[in-house]
Amino acid sequence: MKHLSSLTIALLLATPAAAQRTAPPTPAAVDPQVAALRDAALKDDIAYDIVEGLTTEVGQRLAGTEAEARARDWAVRKLTALGFSNVRAEPYKMPVWVRGDETAEIVTPVPQKLTLVALGNSASTGPRGLTGELAVFPSYAEFANAPASAIRGKIVYIGNAMQPTQDGSSYGSSGPARFTGPALASQKGAAAIVIRSIGTDAHRLPHTGVTTFPTGVKPIPAAALSTPDAALVERLAKRGQPIRLRLLLTPKMIGERESGNVIAEVPGTDPAAGVVLVGGHLDSWDLGTGAIDDASGVAITAAAAKRIMDSGQRPRRTIRVVWFGAEEVGGIGGADYARRHGAERHATASESDFGADRIWRFETELPEAAKAVGARLASALAPLGIVAGSGRAGDGTDIAPTIATGVAGVDLNQSGLRYFDTHHTPDDVLERVDPEQLRQNVAAWTTMLAVVANAPEEIGPVTRP
Amino acid sequence: MKHLSSLTIALLLATPAAAQRTAPPTPAAVDPQVAALRDAALKDDIAYDIVEGLTTEVGQRLAGTEAEARARDWAVRKLTALGFSNVRAEPYKMPVWVRGDETAEIVTPVPQKLTLVALGNSASTGPRGLTGELAVFPSYAEFANAPASAIRGKIVYIGNAMQPTQDGSSYGSSGPARFTGPALASQKGAAAIVIRSIGTDAHRLPHTGVTTFPTGVKPIPAAALSTPDAALVERLAKRGQPIRLRLLLTPKMIGERESGNVIAEVPGTDPAAGVVLVGGHLDSWDLGTGAIDDASGVAITAAAAKRIMDSGQRPRRTIRVVWFGAEEVGGIGGADYARRHGAERHATASESDFGADRIWRFETELPEAAKAVGARLASALAPLGIVAGSGRAGDGTDIAPTIATGVAGVDLNQSGLRYFDTHHTPDDVLERVDPEQLRQNVAAWTTMLAVVANAPEEIGPVTRP
Repeated sequence: MKHLSSLTIALLLATPAAAQRTAPPTPAAVDPQVAALRDAALKDDIAYDIVEGLTTEVGQRLAGTEAEARARDWAVRKLTALGFSNVRAEPYKMPVWVRGDETAEIVTPVPQKLTLVALGNSASTGPRGLTGELAVFPSYAEFANAPASAIRGKIVYIGNAMQPTQDGSSYGSSGPARFTGPALASQKGAAAIVIRSIGTDAHRLPHTGVTTFPTGVKPIPAAALSTPDAALVERLAKRGQPIRLRLLLTPKMIGERESGNVIAEVPGTDPAAGVVLVGGHLDSWDLGTGAIDDASGVAITAAAAKRIMDSGQRPRRTIRVVWFGAEEVGGIGGADYARRHGAERHATASESDFGADRIWRFETELPEAAKAVGARLASALAPLGIVAGSGRAGDGTDIAPTIATGVAGVDLNQSGLRYFDTHHTPDDVLERVDPEQLRQNVAAWTTMLAVVANAPEEIGPVTRP
Repeated sequence: MKHLSSLTIALLLATPAAAQRTAPPTPAAVDPQVAALRDAALKDDIAYDIVEGLTTEVGQRLAGTEAEARARDWAVRKLTALGFSNVRAEPYKMPVWVRGDETAEIVTPVPQKLTLVALGNSASTGPRGLTGELAVFPSYAEFANAPASAIRGKIVYIGNAMQPTQDGSSYGSSGPARFTGPALASQKGAAAIVIRSIGTDAHRLPHTGVTTFPTGVKPIPAAALSTPDAALVERLAKRGQPIRLRLLLTPKMIGERESGNVIAEVPGTDPAAGVVLVGGHLDSWDLGTGAIDDASGVAITAAAAKRIMDSGQRPRRTIRVVWFGAEEVGGIGGADYARRHGAERHATASESDFGADRIWRFETELPEAAKAVGARLASALAPLGIVAGSGRAGDGTDIAPTIATGVAGVDLNQSGLRYFDTHHTPDDVLERVDPEQLRQNVAAWTTMLAVVANAPEEIGPVTRP
């Protein structure tokens, strides 16, 4: 396919299979104002300034903690200074889990200290820790199909090597070891569980993330080993001797605390045309400073909105930028937003929560009457090297409750090839953000807002299967 | 120079500048047996097996601890099983420093937890830690030239970004912040010191390493921040507000303990021709499992010696493989070796202590009567992509005391371009070793041993300037 331009490829992918057997349709024309906004955004410095500021002047901002509260104050100041309208925080209450001490070591057959982190919602081992034999499962499938008799009273280990994928789909296939592994281990009578980090790197930096114990399932201590530590466990297991592990994890639930979303707007000229909702999440995990997850997302969407605001022409639709709170721990901010604002008319919803590497694809979920908006997006985004995907748009934890009300979606997909190298690790810091790729993101989002917020078509609700 | 073969380049570099203006000399012929040993070694599995075994079955092995003693036992068993002669440990006593707790956080202007590790020989802050204002110096030069009045009672910070270099020379230019910075900070009245890690990566994995407080200089708490944490400190410092740091480090000296070298030999046919000494160090820092520093070095040199041993022809000279103890904390094993064995006749000494990436250069320091050995090495190593350098050979902490007695040297230089990414960090684990590059190392060392141990020339002492 090397002889096809990316624009041609985009259009081929965007059209039904039958149409590909005939000549491709004539691409939609690109509005010169849209092209000018897009190209100017390739020199953007606003987004990097936001990421640098949030990671330096606030740092980690775990949901429901005083650090997240400081982040909200910072956000309100920043968005106000940038000139947005209707800037405010919308608070809500949520239960809060905080990390404690966390150490582990192999006791037999050979003393080896391991690097690990507790998963969100992990139970505590108590301050004296616990020691137990490892039940080693190379894969989630082997663990899930093992009888309780092989697990009862033991510390479960689940290997589960994750491969990088551009669309991030391997998170879905590798993630269950973290999402549901601990609850299933508890139900099978395990004393605790350590998993291979859900990550694609080979560094001694483990990946945290939330796990869920449904009502009625007793939480157990649950942690993730760095991938080299997991490989060490697997090499020792292959030698055939039993492995005993000492584990100390002292996280705790500290009760209900305040979290909140921060909202800012670029008011449109036609309130009846519906809101164009964009955003990312302000909270982060507590190990790094949340540069790619998700200072980048809040920065990209705010920078793009500001570029429209500063263009000299008010958009038709109101652009609403939401910096959601408490995403990492279960999408609490997104749910609160939908509860408060779900009855307002939204034209589209779009979320940036997959780092800051270049956007390679866009996808739309638009009503029939607005399909031409997608065609114009294809033409306008193609010069950024962005192709049209054929999936259904509306992806993202924070917009999911809004999308579920029937709102149209436009997704801009970052490359996930290195995202899971540092996702949820202490290494999610400013150094992970490539300023040039960040600018391409801002250009893509600026283009999207210029096309969608000004579209003359009605963008009504959609019906998803 | 792309049109020149690497062999031609090697010879050009190996000859004096004047000779380069004339035709290059005819390269030395390669003994077919040497070529066969070299090429077979490119399929070596012995070295990887040693690295895998030592990192998995022993793990970290800090000098003077029970872990290093376990490593010696493992080494004696392994070298005996491999078929070496005269395998034994040679113990000595040494003072031992061990790590304690280590945490740090910026208190003002904004709370930020920092990732750091104590430097070897660091003093303790005591269990309650200490809090102080940072005196931030972007470079060692600025720190060294600052008046004591700018430092007294403060916590010194020294930035000092290190660049990767193929020959590792940037360790010499960036290292003083660690080697002598803490002692100088103490002399200027600092309460403590934190330096930017001496490393070329951008991960949250700090680099430890030994520092030295000369007699009469009071040890102070001394630690290294990961490079992203150091960059964060520098970004905050640029904002102009004073930075206060809370520091907790509780390392301690635990007194005299036993360490030791492990020695194994391939006996030669001509005892009067002198020993060919090769080796690396068995001890490691305590954070990782010492895969590149220096399980690789002990593995490469032992694998090469075993390949000569198994070749069916005894070498002329005895090949002595020494796995030195206590290198990291000041070359104590190397000094003990020279004390015991310095009076024995050594033909050459060579050390592998720079990881396992490909060898790109060799250098020799040979007496005039043995210069032809160097020419034969050039021809035999060239097919491995190895060029002849013009520096003086005999590099390495462990062989330095032996080299100092006038022993000839042959150095095989690994590429240092990524060595300082993980040197002395928790990330020095098996995953850092590339099996293919490790095999090239074994081939180079096998070639060197085949040429040098069998050289018919007398290899007498050398006089270094």
